[in-house]
Amino acid sequence: MLSPNVETFIACNVPYEKARIVLYGAPFDSTTSFRPGARFGPPAIRHESFGLETFSLYQHADLTDCAVFDSGDLELCFGSSDAALADIQARAAIILGDGKLPFLLGGEHLVTLGAVRAALELYPDLHIIQFDAHADLRDDYLGAKLSHACVMRRCHDLVGDGRIHQFAIRSGEREEFLFAKEHTDMHPFSFACVESLVKDLRQRQVPVYFTIDLDCLDPSAFPGTGTPEAGGVTFMELLRALRAVCTTRVIGADVNELAPMLDASGVSTATACKVVREMLLALEKKCCPSA
Amino acid sequence: MLSPNVETFIACNVPYEKARIVLYGAPFDSTTSFRPGARFGPPAIRHESFGLETFSLYQHADLTDCAVFDSGDLELCFGSSDAALADIQARAAIILGDGKLPFLLGGEHLVTLGAVRAALELYPDLHIIQFDAHADLRDDYLGAKLSHACVMRRCHDLVGDGRIHQFAIRSGEREEFLFAKEHTDMHPFSFACVESLVKDLRQRQVPVYFTIDLDCLDPSAFPGTGTPEAGGVTFMELLRALRAVCTTRVIGADVNELAPMLDASGVSTATACKVVREMLLALEKKCCPSA
Amino acid sequence: MLSPNVETFIACNVPYEKARIVLYGAPFDSTTSFRPGARFGPPAIRHESFGLETFSLYQHADLTDCAVFDSGDLELCFGSSDAALADIQARAAIILGDGKLPFLLGGEHLVTLGAVRAALELYPDLHIIQFDAHADLRDDYLGAKLSHACVMRRCHDLVGDGRIHQFAIRSGEREEFLFAKEHTDMHPFSFACVESLVKDLRQRQVPVYFTIDLDCLDPSAFPGTGTPEAGGVTFMELLRALRAVCTTRVIGADVNELAPMLDASGVSTATACKVVREMLLALEKKCCPSA
Amino acid sequence: MLSPNVETFIACNVPYEKARIVLYGAPFDSTTSFRPGARFGPPAIRHESFGLETFSLYQHADLTDCAVFDSGDLELCFGSSDAALADIQARAAIILGDGKLPFLLGGEHLVTLGAVRAALELYPDLHIIQFDAHADLRDDYLGAKLSHACVMRRCHDLVGDGRIHQFAIRSGEREEFLFAKEHTDMHPFSFACVESLVKDLRQRQVPVYFTIDLDCLDPSAFPGTGTPEAGGVTFMELLRALRAVCTTRVIGADVNELAPMLDASGVSTATACKVVREMLLALEKKCCPSA
Amino acid sequence: MLSPNVETFIACNVPYEKARIVLYGAPFDSTTSFRPGARFGPPAIRHESFGLETFSLYQHADLTDCAVFDSGDLELCFGSSDAALADIQARAAIILGDGKLPFLLGGEHLVTLGAVRAALELYPDLHIIQFDAHADLRDDYLGAKLSHACVMRRCHDLVGDGRIHQFAIRSGEREEFLFAKEHTDMHPFSFACVESLVKDLRQRQVPVYFTIDLDCLDPSAFPGTGTPEAGGVTFMELLRALRAVCTTRVIGADVNELAPMLDASGVSTATACKVVREMLLALEKKCCPSA
Amino acid sequence: MLSPNVETFIACNVPYEKARIVLYGAPFDSTTSFRPGARFGPPAIRHESFGLETFSLYQHADLTDCAVFDSGDLELCFGSSDAALADIQARAAIILGDGKLPFLLGGEHLVTLGAVRAALELYPDLHIIQFDAHADLRDDYLGAKLSHACVMRRCHDLVGDGRIHQFAIRSGEREEFLFAKEHTDMHPFSFACVESLVKDLRQRQVPVYFTIDLDCLDPSAFPGTGTPEAGGVTFMELLRALRAVCTTRVIGADVNELAPMLDASGVSTATACKVVREMLLALEKKCCPSA
Repeated sequence: MLSPNVETFIACNVPYEKARIVLYGAPFDSTTSFRPGARFGPPAIRHESFGLETFSLYQHADLTDCAVFDSGDLELCFGSSDAALADIQARAAIILGDGKLPFLLGGEHLVTLGAVRAALELYPDLHIIQFDAHADLRDDYLGAKLSHACVMRRCHDLVGDGRIHQFAIRSGEREEFLFAKEHTDMHPFSFACVESLVKDLRQRQVPVYFTIDLDCLDPSAFPGTGTPEAGGVTFMELLRALRAVCTTRVIGADVNELAPMLDASGVSTATACKVVREMLLALEKKCCPSA
Repeated sequence: MLSPNVETFIACNVPYEKARIVLYGAPFDSTTSFRPGARFGPPAIRHESFGLETFSLYQHADLTDCAVFDSGDLELCFGSSDAALADIQARAAIILGDGKLPFLLGGEHLVTLGAVRAALELYPDLHIIQFDAHADLRDDYLGAKLSHACVMRRCHDLVGDGRIHQFAIRSGEREEFLFAKEHTDMHPFSFACVESLVKDLRQRQVPVYFTIDLDCLDPSAFPGTGTPEAGGVTFMELLRALRAVCTTRVIGADVNELAPMLDASGVSTATACKVVREMLLALEKKCCPSA
Repeated sequence: MLSPNVETFIACNVPYEKARIVLYGAPFDSTTSFRPGARFGPPAIRHESFGLETFSLYQHADLTDCAVFDSGDLELCFGSSDAALADIQARAAIILGDGKLPFLLGGEHLVTLGAVRAALELYPDLHIIQFDAHADLRDDYLGAKLSHACVMRRCHDLVGDGRIHQFAIRSGEREEFLFAKEHTDMHPFSFACVESLVKDLRQRQVPVYFTIDLDCLDPSAFPGTGTPEAGGVTFMELLRALRAVCTTRVIGADVNELAPMLDASGVSTATACKVVREMLLALEKKCCPSA
Repeated sequence: MLSPNVETFIACNVPYEKARIVLYGAPFDSTTSFRPGARFGPPAIRHESFGLETFSLYQHADLTDCAVFDSGDLELCFGSSDAALADIQARAAIILGDGKLPFLLGGEHLVTLGAVRAALELYPDLHIIQFDAHADLRDDYLGAKLSHACVMRRCHDLVGDGRIHQFAIRSGEREEFLFAKEHTDMHPFSFACVESLVKDLRQRQVPVYFTIDLDCLDPSAFPGTGTPEAGGVTFMELLRALRAVCTTRVIGADVNELAPMLDASGVSTATACKVVREMLLALEKKCCPSA
Repeated sequence: MLSPNVETFIACNVPYEKARIVLYGAPFDSTTSFRPGARFGPPAIRHESFGLETFSLYQHADLTDCAVFDSGDLELCFGSSDAALADIQARAAIILGDGKLPFLLGGEHLVTLGAVRAALELYPDLHIIQFDAHADLRDDYLGAKLSHACVMRRCHDLVGDGRIHQFAIRSGEREEFLFAKEHTDMHPFSFACVESLVKDLRQRQVPVYFTIDLDCLDPSAFPGTGTPEAGGVTFMELLRALRAVCTTRVIGADVNELAPMLDASGVSTATACKVVREMLLALEKKCCPSA
Repeated sequence: MLSPNVETFIACNVPYEKARIVLYGAPFDSTTSFRPGARFGPPAIRHESFGLETFSLYQHADLTDCAVFDSGDLELCFGSSDAALADIQARAAIILGDGKLPFLLGGEHLVTLGAVRAALELYPDLHIIQFDAHADLRDDYLGAKLSHACVMRRCHDLVGDGRIHQFAIRSGEREEFLFAKEHTDMHPFSFACVESLVKDLRQRQVPVYFTIDLDCLDPSAFPGTGTPEAGGVTFMELLRALRAVCTTRVIGADVNELAPMLDASGVSTATACKVVREMLLALEKKCCPSA
């Protein structure tokens, strides 16, 4: 008898009960103000992951040794940010409640808010580490409080001062940087101080939500995103920094803002796949025999 | 002294006070469920119109003889359909209030609702003529009442039975066609009966709002749209039908659903420009000296 | 507990045991001589089918009333036509053996040979109806006997004279047309005589394998294919002809030669989805309550 | 010993001395006002012709039976229309002087002027048959007398009234159509009267220069051109009309305005190749054994 | 009453009289020998600038504090370099005559010659600083003296030896480098000595015309240009170097050679916008309150 | 009398007898498992080379001083790796037999095997230097022994341990790296030790076959390839390393895996041309007067 067509991120096919990490996708980009398309990110990452090796020469580890389950994409309502965030939060809450790490594939950056809300229910002392080109600290954008450009401001509403750590930021309004000076831990342009932050958080065993807006990468490496910002980090710099962060007590994570149709060469999607693979391996490192 | 850079649809540069028709753009596509991009339609139409002749060999008329003003695009809030529709309605109300014909460039089809609301304030006996591939008669779409897929259903809420005339429809859910059978005047696949309808409406001097979803065209003629539906009408059929409709008492109009980045050849944008030119000429026919 | 991510052609999700039709994909294009890419056809059709309505206004029928199972894509060896054809034949044989209709998504046209071999095992009196721009009757192509350009010649090796019925053919070498004159039932350029053939086959209850090379469509309607040939049939002509063929005793079918990356507008993929939907509905017609 | 890499239009490889038709390319588009790219037309046509069959089912003739030589592209000076036209005229004069038919691959439509100048030296009673979407009858364009938009006006300066026959025209300024009414034989929109014209010219054995601007085709069939104009002729209509014209005493010909990079699907280039093949076969018909 | 649709580079909307810098566009590329498209640069930069923040984290300055007017694009004659250059020179002369800094958006690099001619009228001791991948020092190109490949040679005709400073050059003919050795101040591959040159020019208060051919950037950062040359500078290197140059007495400037349609990802256009913003801020630095 | 249209890599037009290096192309990609298109590499490189200067500022040498002949592309059978490799081997054998250096333009990487087989006939002590992102050391791939993913494993079958030197490798299966540890000289990620290897090989006058898979470059510099791998080398690093290798006794070489249609910007093709130019100049250095 023939089986139905199950499609997952490559090698992410352990049974749900045995999984330590659970992938879920949020194909949503309704508040994107410039060039939409991030909604196509999650299925593109899943589909193109089959052009990837499961083995990483950077970490000498193999996805086939890891315990990851891919629960597919949520069916979200375009045009209603409230409804979409509620659905994301609910899925994250289920995964967290089962003692697993929710790993979200966006979607525009606003989707992070849903996952953070769920994480805060279990971890009130949560810190957030953000890799991003944009500060995302506006109080509202064209009248909307729920917007990709406001997502970290909304997170700040929830976690308060000093618990959002922002890296590689190079774009924003003047007001956002004034806000950051008072309320967040912002490191512009690069990953300069990521190691020392990570050391501190690791020692204190602080629960960390880790969000990567892929536009932190230089557009030469990652052109397939709605608002490309010249002057970004390299892939190798991102790799080193994300492995550092994954040594902390990460309890939730996301990778977002791939808009695959904006890069017809396929390089951006392939690079996003590699970032996801390296994160999964770094998060799973302790339990992988080959690590 | 140098002048600022004014950009209009070609030859639509009479002073506002002298204009009979006023263009306005609604670059909005937040509820688009499949492939977004209609937000880029209005500026693309305006910009590419300069590749167009102002003279039409079909109507032997010239845009330079017409009285059209282009008021540019509204700055709409992505992520909030309510706010966007309110802004569209307000602009349409101003133009109608000044005794001019508002001509809207979309955007996704939902934008029509804002213009229809404004028109109903002045013309409670309004009829709507819709050229479209899709019925757009769903009661809700993924939970949203305000969606491109529901726009004609929302219009029906306002105008009631028998006053929405739908042509070239070839796609929808079973429920939409059952609804249409009871409540609208639907003509599937073609413009078969447009002449007789027009004759009747013209004789009764019924006020007409005329909305064209450009995906009524076959995708071979118009690939640059979010949800292309094979089996559509030809450009020449559309031309004949729209000129017929423009002989009625049209008091408002729109052209929507061009997503220019989906057709890199530029053909769809050029064709949209030509549709706008032919509509403007047809609507202005009586007062154009060369007509 | 969360479910894994099952991806099927829209609404093709009945359990295998209850299915009357079974979809399977052959993402293979190794012998394509001009522009490859048909290997990406099956997943693109499956993925983009979610932009499609399940209801057909042409047939007043709905896919949700049909009994179709999607068994996903075969993993085929690039570079070995022999191995790929053997795998295709094996899958088709399983489906046929379970009393179901195998419906193959290609891939280049060579994949048809695998399915035809399986069908001949059960139906030695098989006829083949081919819709195609190309005769595909070369004896070899650049030395290869197993090539997309030879697939109907290889089928002729198996079924013999007068049992291959070719429609819409408009391209080939002089030798292919000389061969056709002697050995096949060729109808160049159009579907002119499809009705009378169908009537005859239906009356005699001849088992029919039905293969559609989507390049039979005019390139204006279907640009996304490796070897576009101007002067083809329209979508509506194809629709009528395929519904006619589906009134015969079809025991296997395929749709092939979509190369989605050659048409960035997405129109070709959307059109292929619609062809598949219409074929499934036509093949299922007798058992659908709404038909 | 190895041979150098000779690249020709498919099967156009007889020695120059034996050729009856000689291809030459003019990769020039400096005066294109809207979207350039026609300069890439000739090498694209030559290169992609290898995806074409040499046999035509429309004419039951084969290019391998014809006597055509491909002399490659001229190296023209961008930015100087005068110099470019002189080079084109010189090449055409050589070919005509050797008693052969010069067949020019453009390039923008201005290139025709160079070939017409050469033809008039030998054939002062020359008529011109033009297939085109645009009248090309402006007296000047943005100050330039030598422009693609003026090419037929410049030809009229040379041949005078009643000797330019224009078909499928659907775009131009009002002044151009007023000029045409007085001075040219214009047939708007279609090939309606081409048969009767051809009959007359054939009987009188008038020497004919035949120029095809491929934008006469509908943009659905031929999107790859700088100024696409909706409402054009179909490929089959073009085929019939060009075969009719080729029964007159054609002494020179050209095919122009393919801008291949504007149609990434490759359909426009493939269609241009087919038009060239059909013209070569039609022009060679009398001497081809299979005709 | 509604206002017409004014389109400027973002935030460049002070009244002309109050402006210190005036933008003007030259959408011209007739002499481009390889891949045209730079004509589309100025409107693309203007239009896409709305995806940009007005604030720069690099300079801690905001465009909304600056005094810039955007006078739109010139309407230039394609096919006549002489006429186009005269129009550019005239516009530059007006701006310079009004005591403002003319900032030109190209177009191909030849447009610089028009601006330099105007600048030399007022500043006979002018120096030119050029950032470019190509030397542009040919005496003629395919017979044309006015060509993008000759623009710096033509400038040398006007300013003489030692007053053209060339940086980041990595491509040219052997003769151009021999010429440079004798007549210009060329710094191949990088911005190695830009600081010392700038110091000297600043101390001597030499008037400087500053021209940036964006192809000085590595093609990975800026693929959207006609003749990409691997091995270029990074965006951050360009930023540092241009800020250094802007500390001299710059009396005119241009940014050119963006061909937006060659980079469908939009990265090149976004990067060009950022270069323009950073240059405007650097040129305005002294009078901006936030600087 | 007019000449036929000879198309070569720029300036590679000396007579065969006088040539020291002979170019030949293998447009083959049948075993490509992910995204095909490398078959279009050789003609694209040849055609686009005309946008390149013949002079190199890196080497102060000019292709017009070199002795290179371009023998064009082989016509290979798609779908049969065996036949294709035999044809490549035969062409390489002719060139080697005439005492010239065969320089192969691929094509997928499997084509190298044909050239290596020919080289081993004359040079049994051959070493191979490979620049590549992928190890290409699988024993089989989806059942095929002849596959791009196995090409270096097949070469190892022929040359044995320690004679394959691999640089810039960053992707592969775990098994490939275990194999490399035992059998090849692998240098992951970079060109770290290329100088010392080169020095040793040069002193021992070992015959070297030099194969460059262009995907060794970072995808930002070279997106146009089937399997882009983030984290690669820069163009300048590749340039330095290839010039070092060319100081050894190179007796055959190839450059492969450009898939031009995957990078519509043209940057990848232009970069491939530059790599070929620099290799030709480096290989010819001793006999070029300007070197």
